[in-house]
Amino acid sequence: MPVPTIEWHRGGVKIIDQSKLPKKLTYLYCTDATSIWQAIRKLQVRGAPAIGVAVAFGVVLGIKGSTTKNYRDFEKDLNEVIDYLATARPTAINLFWALERMKHVANVNRDEGIPELKRILLNEAQKILEEDKEVCRKIGENGQALVENGDTILTHCNAGALATVDYGTALGIIYRAREEGKKVSVYVDESRPLLQGARLTTWELMREGIDVTLICDGMVGRVMEEGRISKVLVGADRVAANGDCANKIGTYNLAILAHAHHMPFYIACPTSSFDLTLARGNEIPIEERDGDEVTTLYGRRIAPEGVKVYNPAFDVTPAHLITAIITEVGIARPLYKESLKAQVTNPKFQ
Amino acid sequence: MPVPTIEWHRGGVKIIDQSKLPKKLTYLYCTDATSIWQAIRKLQVRGAPAIGVAVAFGVVLGIKGSTTKNYRDFEKDLNEVIDYLATARPTAINLFWALERMKHVANVNRDEGIPELKRILLNEAQKILEEDKEVCRKIGENGQALVENGDTILTHCNAGALATVDYGTALGIIYRAREEGKKVSVYVDESRPLLQGARLTTWELMREGIDVTLICDGMVGRVMEEGRISKVLVGADRVAANGDCANKIGTYNLAILAHAHHMPFYIACPTSSFDLTLARGNEIPIEERDGDEVTTLYGRRIAPEGVKVYNPAFDVTPAHLITAIITEVGIARPLYKESLKAQVTNPKFQ
Repeated sequence: MPVPTIEWHRGGVKIIDQSKLPKKLTYLYCTDATSIWQAIRKLQVRGAPAIGVAVAFGVVLGIKGSTTKNYRDFEKDLNEVIDYLATARPTAINLFWALERMKHVANVNRDEGIPELKRILLNEAQKILEEDKEVCRKIGENGQALVENGDTILTHCNAGALATVDYGTALGIIYRAREEGKKVSVYVDESRPLLQGARLTTWELMREGIDVTLICDGMVGRVMEEGRISKVLVGADRVAANGDCANKIGTYNLAILAHAHHMPFYIACPTSSFDLTLARGNEIPIEERDGDEVTTLYGRRIAPEGVKVYNPAFDVTPAHLITAIITEVGIARPLYKESLKAQVTNPKFQ
Repeated sequence: MPVPTIEWHRGGVKIIDQSKLPKKLTYLYCTDATSIWQAIRKLQVRGAPAIGVAVAFGVVLGIKGSTTKNYRDFEKDLNEVIDYLATARPTAINLFWALERMKHVANVNRDEGIPELKRILLNEAQKILEEDKEVCRKIGENGQALVENGDTILTHCNAGALATVDYGTALGIIYRAREEGKKVSVYVDESRPLLQGARLTTWELMREGIDVTLICDGMVGRVMEEGRISKVLVGADRVAANGDCANKIGTYNLAILAHAHHMPFYIACPTSSFDLTLARGNEIPIEERDGDEVTTLYGRRIAPEGVKVYNPAFDVTPAHLITAIITEVGIARPLYKESLKAQVTNPKFQ
């Protein structure tokens, strides 16, 4: 079992500092909203589900010191904390989903009194964490219909234990396959610029004893053409109502390459990554990050000073390139406009 | 005008050490075949045309000390040098083409006596160098039919001055476009693992004052989808008789992505990169390099110790994804089986 990426520990949040992996396994200990915000912004904690959990605890920490005596004043403080945490990163919807959920639970319990409200908020954050564990295991279970014994699966970035509380979405399906006795191998591309594939997914899979081969992002076509992989399985940061999926930059390349090689392309994510208020993927805000992430690696400059850089952190894969979307509810297939809605409005649908 | 990548200088070969760029512009000075072999193997000199020139001078340096008195003995020494240099790298055909040419010129002049033969070989190497300059300029000229004012061109790795003697193949077309008053911008992907795009193409284009934007290899699909580029233009290391092209790993990805976005995909190379003895690209030997190139950057480890790595240095783009191949002879279009042969057998064909 992987170590937990994030846990509530002695009144604060203990988080694996992913910026230090794979060199060393160290922890951050966050006791206020600012340190949660920074940990998210700096990708010390990353992955849509893990960000959702982190930000929920961020609310707890941010409101902890509120000395307000009535709900109106408390709500003002709470909204301030929530609005602040909402600025940490723009693309993964789980961040906003968790904040909305915290806001909602406060509002529903507005008559409980401030100390009780704070306890309720902590309880809700812990519930989000526990649900994430369960949701990932359900995703792992539901994905088995798509994984065969002998598969070699290409994944991208990290949609594993490190992107969630402790099991993963895309990698959760691989862990479950192994638990069921299927022999599954993995290829992962390094996922430049921040190398989550090279640093995190390799680390996590090697610890779990799963066969993993690292390649560069530009090698994917070659590897597919050589028949080295059988399917592609990645996570998502936000899914629009029509099934378009935002995920780590480079995912769209893989979807096109998979299509060109007649290979299934699967997304695995919780339904908390759905954003059915957006009709299409082009409405998803795409974070653009500092060019230094591309030109500098561990403080070493790898491109000329002053070079222009474009550094979008995510891209959008159009629904027509996605074979299926695996969630804790089941497997959604095209037309996604109907199948995604069915998963949310009637979770027993599948 | 770019500085020469390679020149004959005081009885040795002066080469820009590309492994040190962009941090500093330094030179290697090679006075024997071994140092030429190592410079090629370590990619201190790289790019198919530049490798051809380097290896021709490598023959001159390798045979310089031969004390043989007759052609039979001289030929034995010569073949030994040639066979050794042929092992430097396997994919770029220009290496073998240049060695064959040196062997041929020696054979034709077998009756000249050893000192004169050595002079003839030096002369041939210098001719290969001078021809490369001219060939690149012709490629630049011929490519103009495909470059429009206002184009933004995506290129990969480095097919510029640094890959040739002093002008470039793909980038030569861009230099010529600028000379003709066309406004052309460039996007280049970093070209992992060895970052020739990030380190070399940016450096070279910035020195020439050409607008260049650096992206990661995984960003290409996004950049195309956003409408940021109008065409793709890259070099080649070996072209099979049917038009399949081996080039730096990642090229095949770009060709598929260009196709998916209805964008022209052009190859620029000298006809010395043709290998019409191979029917198809799958016969081209693809160099596989050490995994450390992927897991380590400037001595810093970026992936876990012991991780499995697959590191092919080239891939093959099938002819059906290539809109045209631009050479010093003209523009070859499908069916390449005919158009490539015509370029070689009748250079005035176009």
